[in-house]
Amino acid sequence: MRPFITLISLLLYQCFALSSDSHASNRAKILHDEELLALGGNITLTEQETKVNNCLMQYKLNEINFAFNNPEYFNFTYHFFKYKTNIHTSKVYKIIKDLPKGAALHLHDVAILGPDYLMNITYMNHLYVCFAKDKVQLKFSDQLPTDPCSGHWQLMSEARRLSRNVTNFDAQLRQHFTLVVNDPAKVYPCIKNTWEAFMNYFITVGSMLTYRPVWEQYFYDTLKAFREQNIMYVEVRSTLPKLYELDGTTYDPFITAKAYKKSINKFMKDYPDFTGAKLIYAPIRDTDKKSVTKYLELALRIKAEMPDVFAGFDLVGQEDKGKPLIEFADQLTAAADNLTYFFHAGETDWYGTSTDENLVDAILLGAKRLGHAYALPKHPLLIKEVLKRDIGLEVNVISNTVLSLVQDVRNHPLALFLAQGLPVVLSSDDPGAWEADLISEDFYVAFVGVASKSSDLRLLKQLALNSLKYSALEGDTKKTALKKFNSEWNDFINRFECSAY
Amino acid sequence: MRPFITLISLLLYQCFALSSDSHASNRAKILHDEELLALGGNITLTEQETKVNNCLMQYKLNEINFAFNNPEYFNFTYHFFKYKTNIHTSKVYKIIKDLPKGAALHLHDVAILGPDYLMNITYMNHLYVCFAKDKVQLKFSDQLPTDPCSGHWQLMSEARRLSRNVTNFDAQLRQHFTLVVNDPAKVYPCIKNTWEAFMNYFITVGSMLTYRPVWEQYFYDTLKAFREQNIMYVEVRSTLPKLYELDGTTYDPFITAKAYKKSINKFMKDYPDFTGAKLIYAPIRDTDKKSVTKYLELALRIKAEMPDVFAGFDLVGQEDKGKPLIEFADQLTAAADNLTYFFHAGETDWYGTSTDENLVDAILLGAKRLGHAYALPKHPLLIKEVLKRDIGLEVNVISNTVLSLVQDVRNHPLALFLAQGLPVVLSSDDPGAWEADLISEDFYVAFVGVASKSSDLRLLKQLALNSLKYSALEGDTKKTALKKFNSEWNDFINRFECSAY
Ligand SMILES: [Zn+2]
Ligand SMILES: [Zn+2]
Repeated sequence: MRPFITLISLLLYQCFALSSDSHASNRAKILHDEELLALGGNITLTEQETKVNNCLMQYKLNEINFAFNNPEYFNFTYHFFKYKTNIHTSKVYKIIKDLPKGAALHLHDVAILGPDYLMNITYMNHLYVCFAKDKVQLKFSDQLPTDPCSGHWQLMSEARRLSRNVTNFDAQLRQHFTLVVNDPAKVYPCIKNTWEAFMNYFITVGSMLTYRPVWEQYFYDTLKAFREQNIMYVEVRSTLPKLYELDGTTYDPFITAKAYKKSINKFMKDYPDFTGAKLIYAPIRDTDKKSVTKYLELALRIKAEMPDVFAGFDLVGQEDKGKPLIEFADQLTAAADNLTYFFHAGETDWYGTSTDENLVDAILLGAKRLGHAYALPKHPLLIKEVLKRDIGLEVNVISNTVLSLVQDVRNHPLALFLAQGLPVVLSSDDPGAWEADLISEDFYVAFVGVASKSSDLRLLKQLALNSLKYSALEGDTKKTALKKFNSEWNDFINRFECSAY
Repeated sequence: MRPFITLISLLLYQCFALSSDSHASNRAKILHDEELLALGGNITLTEQETKVNNCLMQYKLNEINFAFNNPEYFNFTYHFFKYKTNIHTSKVYKIIKDLPKGAALHLHDVAILGPDYLMNITYMNHLYVCFAKDKVQLKFSDQLPTDPCSGHWQLMSEARRLSRNVTNFDAQLRQHFTLVVNDPAKVYPCIKNTWEAFMNYFITVGSMLTYRPVWEQYFYDTLKAFREQNIMYVEVRSTLPKLYELDGTTYDPFITAKAYKKSINKFMKDYPDFTGAKLIYAPIRDTDKKSVTKYLELALRIKAEMPDVFAGFDLVGQEDKGKPLIEFADQLTAAADNLTYFFHAGETDWYGTSTDENLVDAILLGAKRLGHAYALPKHPLLIKEVLKRDIGLEVNVISNTVLSLVQDVRNHPLALFLAQGLPVVLSSDDPGAWEADLISEDFYVAFVGVASKSSDLRLLKQLALNSLKYSALEGDTKKTALKKFNSEWNDFINRFECSAY
């Protein structure tokens, strides 16, 4: 029996070795297939790009490995307001900032430039202020405003002078231009509180920014700031609020669209290397059918008269508060052949509600991109539609965490979008309102906080490419933009020095 | 031209009406297909079940619709410790408690019965206590223990008497038997703090429960408590700690397995309507290959000598701290033909790390079920494998939120598992450690907090059926269990009265 047993042992041993080998090879195959499927997985890096990637990944792995072993120091466990200044010490962040990032496609106009920029405006002449209980109203005027206000109107310069402590005065005023607070858990225990503060922000800031000359300058400066962060093209959403003059003249919203065209033209003249900007008309969703008819008429008029500036249509406001798209489905269906849609949809934690179902309607209405699509993973069939119809997903990670959808961004659905290789574009929604830089912090949080530890430069490149691919740019303009991007990208790669970070 | 224009208008109108109709029907189709795909979607309710469902859904929709409009009152926005007592006022919870729920398959033995049960044990004779800094050691003994301790050993009865304030003394002692605190955000700012407290819980409680007579009684009482919550079968994970006697005798872990058999047999004799319980041997993962060899030998010995009690093998401990399965892949592969695996895998927020990759290894090692699989949605290819291999997913929602993986459970991956119809079984992991009831609170949180607003009785029935389908029960025993479940289910349905809730 001896030899026979030995033979069996040998066979068993080989079996063992085989199956253990096969474990290793099956494992490697799955991980490799996952990598190929993930966003950016199809990109092959050049030799020079590989050098940059090695540098980038060395810094990224340093950050992640340290935090994996010392989770108490991991930024993303905490509220964004607790770690936002830490981001700036990161070498990964610094590289991302310098990286050409393509286009920024999901932004709301009056919440892009932060409170420091807004504070400068409060030093301009002719600005009046009314301090009401917990709120601040602002207005440029050549005489005392008569707008209803529960306090009394006075010149800002006068109020500031009378305060006797300009530092305190400005610090308190600045608080109305930002959601950032020291103790977010206490101030924003629930989404209701966050959105209330957010809406107040829009009212306060809007009243100051809609002074026509300020409005035009603000958007010019917005484009300038994006260009400085290596963004080459911007699509901005606007409710097209009525602009006004010092003498009280107010214009209809069409003039606001014209002001955009004016700012964009001026900027392109000064910075011809920039690709440009377009407008998504995005009025308030909490309205009725009659207003939506007017909205759509205005959209078509802007499209007809300024086709180069107009990108498409959307509806905005806290989505859970309505109205859901289904309320206007008839009208939106009727206009779908003539308008490109970029609907906010599924910016919610509420599974199976009307907000959640906006995803179905947005997709069926033929949206070219979806704003947020936060709830999409709860709809596997819609994920298939997104792939089939090649719909861009505008993801704004910092926005979703600040606006109370998710705390630790490692639970953000972007991780699943990236894993499945869905057509993601990263944007920043309202960076000014939470004092984020224009877009690099969003890329950083997505890259280090959300994406796989092993996601690398290929992901960043694909995100930049997607932002142009899914933009409203078309034909030759799009081709030129992609060419320009590739040239900027290669410049960056070729002059990259790891030791500079 | 008039008639012609009218004709065009008419055609346009019909086009409009058509496409708007087609929107409605496409929308309905997608929502219907989603419903079919989701877990429970294939079940057709009987007339009587439909009546129960109508009652259940009326209560569920009341809760959700109110919270959707008043999110500040929505439990799941906050930490579990803040709303756990609220749950008990819910009619949905009360119905779920009474519902036959099948089996509980993911539980760790010494963390099932809560602090009130444990406090009773501290009133038993021969219990010694040593209060060290911030920690408590406990031991049953017929003489003063000599176990190392930085304080001094005394009889618990003596310590209690000397405290002069038994209420205070007991309240302080009880705090060592629970993770529940008033201000979880302060006490557990990060996963490190939660797991430190959790590990201390195990040390403190373990030293008291491993007194052999207490151990046997504890598991008997565990089964009794599950039976009272309409659970008919239990699979319990144990590290098989060494049991001891008053005279200091300690036994080897095999005896601990025998103690399980003894408790189960006694319980089945007293409650023959119960289906039974099995043991998953789940020793500590933070170890070396040599120990794993010993683990596997012990597992095979228990299987050989107590095949009716032994279900399979797992490794436990904070997964991020290691060791990952890959370290023991050779040994586990070699034993895979003879052992059923129920591996904890992917209980982590860390995408692309060794913990995350445990999912790959657990699946390739042929696991029959995965413990948590929290990170699974980040691995679309593994989701396909889970479906292909029909691997049960043991989801423990409350555990994941208490142990710092996710705050608002609406972001829990269970929502995606349900949407995709993955083979989920619900369990409760360590309910005693966070003072949850044995399993009904987990069902409630999953049903109201995580699942779609429209998920109904079909989901609850499917979850119960899955818990038997993916259990370690086999052959006729499994058939009998399913039969018994169906009979209990029908009894519940037939005697259900909405007004009773
Ligand atoms: Zn937005
Ligand atoms: Zn567990």
